Amino acid sequence: MSKFYHTIEGEFSMKKGILHSPQIAYETWGVLNSKRDNAVLIFTGLSPSAHIASSVEDNSPGWWEDMVGPGKPIDTRQYFVICVNSLGSCFGSTGAASINPETGQVYRLDFPQLCIEDVAKSSVEVIRALNISSLYATVGASMGGMTALAFCILYPGLNRALLSISSAARALPFAIALRSLQREIIREDPVWNGGLYPLDAPPASGMRLARKLGMISYRSASEWQTRFARERAPSSSDSNSTGPFQRSFEVESYLEHQANAFIGKFDTNCYLYLSQAMDLFDSADFGGCLEQAFAKLKIERAKVVGVTTDILFPIQQQKELSELLGKVVNDVSFDCLESVQGHDSFLVDMDRFRPVIASFFAEK
Amino acid sequence: MSKFYHTIEGEFSMKKGILHSPQIAYETWGVLNSKRDNAVLIFTGLSPSAHIASSVEDNSPGWWEDMVGPGKPIDTRQYFVICVNSLGSCFGSTGAASINPETGQVYRLDFPQLCIEDVAKSSVEVIRALNISSLYATVGASMGGMTALAFCILYPGLNRALLSISSAARALPFAIALRSLQREIIREDPVWNGGLYPLDAPPASGMRLARKLGMISYRSASEWQTRFARERAPSSSDSNSTGPFQRSFEVESYLEHQANAFIGKFDTNCYLYLSQAMDLFDSADFGGCLEQAFAKLKIERAKVVGVTTDILFPIQQQKELSELLGKVVNDVSFDCLESVQGHDSFLVDMDRFRPVIASFFAEK
Repeated sequence: MSKFYHTIEGEFSMKKGILHSPQIAYETWGVLNSKRDNAVLIFTGLSPSAHIASSVEDNSPGWWEDMVGPGKPIDTRQYFVICVNSLGSCFGSTGAASINPETGQVYRLDFPQLCIEDVAKSSVEVIRALNISSLYATVGASMGGMTALAFCILYPGLNRALLSISSAARALPFAIALRSLQREIIREDPVWNGGLYPLDAPPASGMRLARKLGMISYRSASEWQTRFARERAPSSSDSNSTGPFQRSFEVESYLEHQANAFIGKFDTNCYLYLSQAMDLFDSADFGGCLEQAFAKLKIERAKVVGVTTDILFPIQQQKELSELLGKVVNDVSFDCLESVQGHDSFLVDMDRFRPVIASFFAEK
Repeated sequence: MSKFYHTIEGEFSMKKGILHSPQIAYETWGVLNSKRDNAVLIFTGLSPSAHIASSVEDNSPGWWEDMVGPGKPIDTRQYFVICVNSLGSCFGSTGAASINPETGQVYRLDFPQLCIEDVAKSSVEVIRALNISSLYATVGASMGGMTALAFCILYPGLNRALLSISSAARALPFAIALRSLQREIIREDPVWNGGLYPLDAPPASGMRLARKLGMISYRSASEWQTRFARERAPSSSDSNSTGPFQRSFEVESYLEHQANAFIGKFDTNCYLYLSQAMDLFDSADFGGCLEQAFAKLKIERAKVVGVTTDILFPIQQQKELSELLGKVVNDVSFDCLESVQGHDSFLVDMDRFRPVIASFFAEK
């Protein structure tokens, strides 16, 4: 692999504003073949970077380490894999934590409202710069699945196959409510200060609480019942584990640990922008209604993968997506997996996901 | 009806502390018969008062107005209905917002840790004061179902029938995580100030956010999909509906409205105590394991009612409860209702609940 930065020269028109010379970070694995048609474009969920897998240059494990590499389901001996850090994120691509070249100041809330189609539109510039005119496949899970869908609708014919995992054709009110509440929790933290927090001292309390709510929506009740039941937490000395409302249960310690691991790793304003972009996503926007939007697709095949315990992108939305695709794509398969880890299953239940992903990439 | 206050004279031993002469508020409807055996004791969920239904003395609608009254499913021409405001609450019963008679100061966090069994133990004093030695039935929904179960286990023979609605034999980690996060959100509000907020200026931001999370856990994704879909909110002028992360969707306005209606109506510290009491509840505590605890029951019949879309007290927990009761009670029925309003269905889906409750009270 190598890590690259592509600069989009001049003005980049977003749905709701303009960026000047934004940069898109991406990593690649494997080799582009002579026909330049073996590339796989992968979009990420809200929080990961483009580092999907380790490599000689960067041997730190990637966020889908089990899935991408030589001999793995997305086999880098066969495919040229490109993973893009979303526009609006904070791992090399331009976002609210980047310097606005027009002012020399950090964008913060001067960054335009971000939409999923902006992420797709900025990514196509990378594909064009690589002189690729036919992608083997586009892949996305969670928010990345929304981006992959937008990409395929916006650029018909550029991509031959779509793999959508635990994603949706549009955001629905239960997920919107959860994400909206996460954003409000962050904005209510006085340290957020209208987005003007010191970049080295972000609103930790708001981010911790929002991340805990995120974890509740990413996993499942049945997983936690098996894993934690009513196990008590060992007492510790931090302020949340003493006093009359101290943490009592192991599940509370788990959330605390997960949330603390997240704080400081992701810029707060970037989080707000990406979170809202998911709420705003409705693929019907591309055609007046879902059916007309999907009619724009020109892909040869698609696979939709969903998990029965997912409460954020529920299995009904996976079914809807595969039915919409089925009307316009010849070869559509739908895998409904019984993983217990909810929305996060694609990141952790590798034994269930590996063969499903491998079967998609075994097809020619 | 009439509204009463029963004072428990002297020291009242809680599971984790002592109260001095606590008071229990309750309301009654109907007439106690000459055998004093037609009384129905109703325990409430976390937030309602004892005002379950309107009456000549107080014609404001009660929180279960459709269910209690002359000719209604719990027919006050036949039964003497008693509804208790839980110990630890703030509608007349002693709680963290009450004056500690020992110090003359508001208890605040000097109130001992509250357990569900304390609510049951304080309520039995009301029943004894009324000179009732055989209750027709004990009823509880949500937290009230936990209290009703504790009451029946603690006082075998005092009660003849149990009606448990959308409740549980113990709190499980998904619900614990949600409630724990609600409490942490409140405690992170600087206005909470370790429980020392001015009683007339409570931590509104923390309470608003916690209530929104509550509403998310009380309703269901399918209800909101039907009700709100992706409907946009009318723009308004408050600070949360302007700026780059303004409320966009109707579901967000709904949550805002619901949360604002709650603020100021419920004391924040009382909320924290009652919320934690639910997490701590495990009926296995009464006997070493669930089976031994349930073996203490001496009731003639029981009905368990649950809702398929409830994510806070899921239907599996209703099934578990009915199976546990089935081992020790001769006449147990289980009603699994298809209401779409989630945990709150018993408060709103009256067409489904009315006949189920009525059938329980039609039996002799």
